[in-house]
Amino acid sequence: MAATLQIQTDGKGLYEITDRVHEVIASMEVDDGVCVVFVQHTSASLTIQENADPSARRDLEGWMERSVPEGQPEFTHTMEGADDMPSHIRSMLTDVSLSIPIVDGRLTLGTWQGIYLFEHRAESHRRRVVVQALGA
Amino acid sequence: MAATLQIQTDGKGLYEITDRVHEVIASMEVDDGVCVVFVQHTSASLTIQENADPSARRDLEGWMERSVPEGQPEFTHTMEGADDMPSHIRSMLTDVSLSIPIVDGRLTLGTWQGIYLFEHRAESHRRRVVVQALGA
Amino acid sequence: MAATLQIQTDGKGLYEITDRVHEVIASMEVDDGVCVVFVQHTSASLTIQENADPSARRDLEGWMERSVPEGQPEFTHTMEGADDMPSHIRSMLTDVSLSIPIVDGRLTLGTWQGIYLFEHRAESHRRRVVVQALGA
Repeated sequence: MAATLQIQTDGKGLYEITDRVHEVIASMEVDDGVCVVFVQHTSASLTIQENADPSARRDLEGWMERSVPEGQPEFTHTMEGADDMPSHIRSMLTDVSLSIPIVDGRLTLGTWQGIYLFEHRAESHRRRVVVQALGA
Repeated sequence: MAATLQIQTDGKGLYEITDRVHEVIASMEVDDGVCVVFVQHTSASLTIQENADPSARRDLEGWMERSVPEGQPEFTHTMEGADDMPSHIRSMLTDVSLSIPIVDGRLTLGTWQGIYLFEHRAESHRRRVVVQALGA
Repeated sequence: MAATLQIQTDGKGLYEITDRVHEVIASMEVDDGVCVVFVQHTSASLTIQENADPSARRDLEGWMERSVPEGQPEFTHTMEGADDMPSHIRSMLTDVSLSIPIVDGRLTLGTWQGIYLFEHRAESHRRRVVVQALGA
């Protein structure tokens, strides 16, 4: 069973989608299995990160901005703007798919783990994330 | 069900394997499930990236070359050459396994997503990639 | 079926857990399926790396220390110490989950591949890693 989430983004940054994934998984009634989360883009990605303190999120975003900066003179793939190529690199460094065990019908996320969509483009986008439950 | 692809590489770079993965999955006749792609090496890796414009691919390769350069004086694991240690680091930063949902018998890749083997060694290699379909 | 490994760490570094994962999978008697390894933390992560030569491991640890250094003046999430924010970034760059095909009851790891827990915090921790076998 699979469902597709539509995530509206509004510029670069981490968007928490934990509750929406929980909701989909709960509706699928899989007791023992795995949840696969898959983003259908190459300029937005996934990561599991601390969801307690927003300062961690801001620092992750800031580190990416400094470590994979826009405007590198070597870039040739720039037709869609200065954030185009950094988006692909940032996606490559994070995750396109996550596999999370389901035990007793629940995702086995740790206490402080949240699931995030990482939007790498400056403009607003509607992103597609496939959420699947496999098992019985 | 699992099959092992043999991918012949000829130096560093991204090698698209999307069609070969599609082919294996089609032969396995899984309608609703997950495709696991797994590379059996630590100096070559996997990534899902834009497959429309080759300039994106070249820029990803160039960024890796600049950001995880050969010849770092701190390296001690250099017996197999200057590309040895950067290969392991580049593998660590990308993916060893990918999980892609299968819905109605097809991989749910986005419009512009291609599956790539990322060869990190300068010499030619025959790489092994396990492709598996799980489900019913 | 899923089991939770408790991994005692003693400072930053790569801790091999391959044998413990093999043991869990062997006990689950899945012939054809997938093994999902999932770490329940955001300051420790997973990676599959060369397990032959310890110098590779040391160089991976050293590269992380230099490339995602402590004490970056831009960090604001520093309450738990100088290794707090670098831990989250290093986790984001490596893996929170691994999917490894099981064929004929065995993990399809390559000859030189070992599974590692990457501890990013300086102090000792007891880390939780969920190991799951899915299939028949």
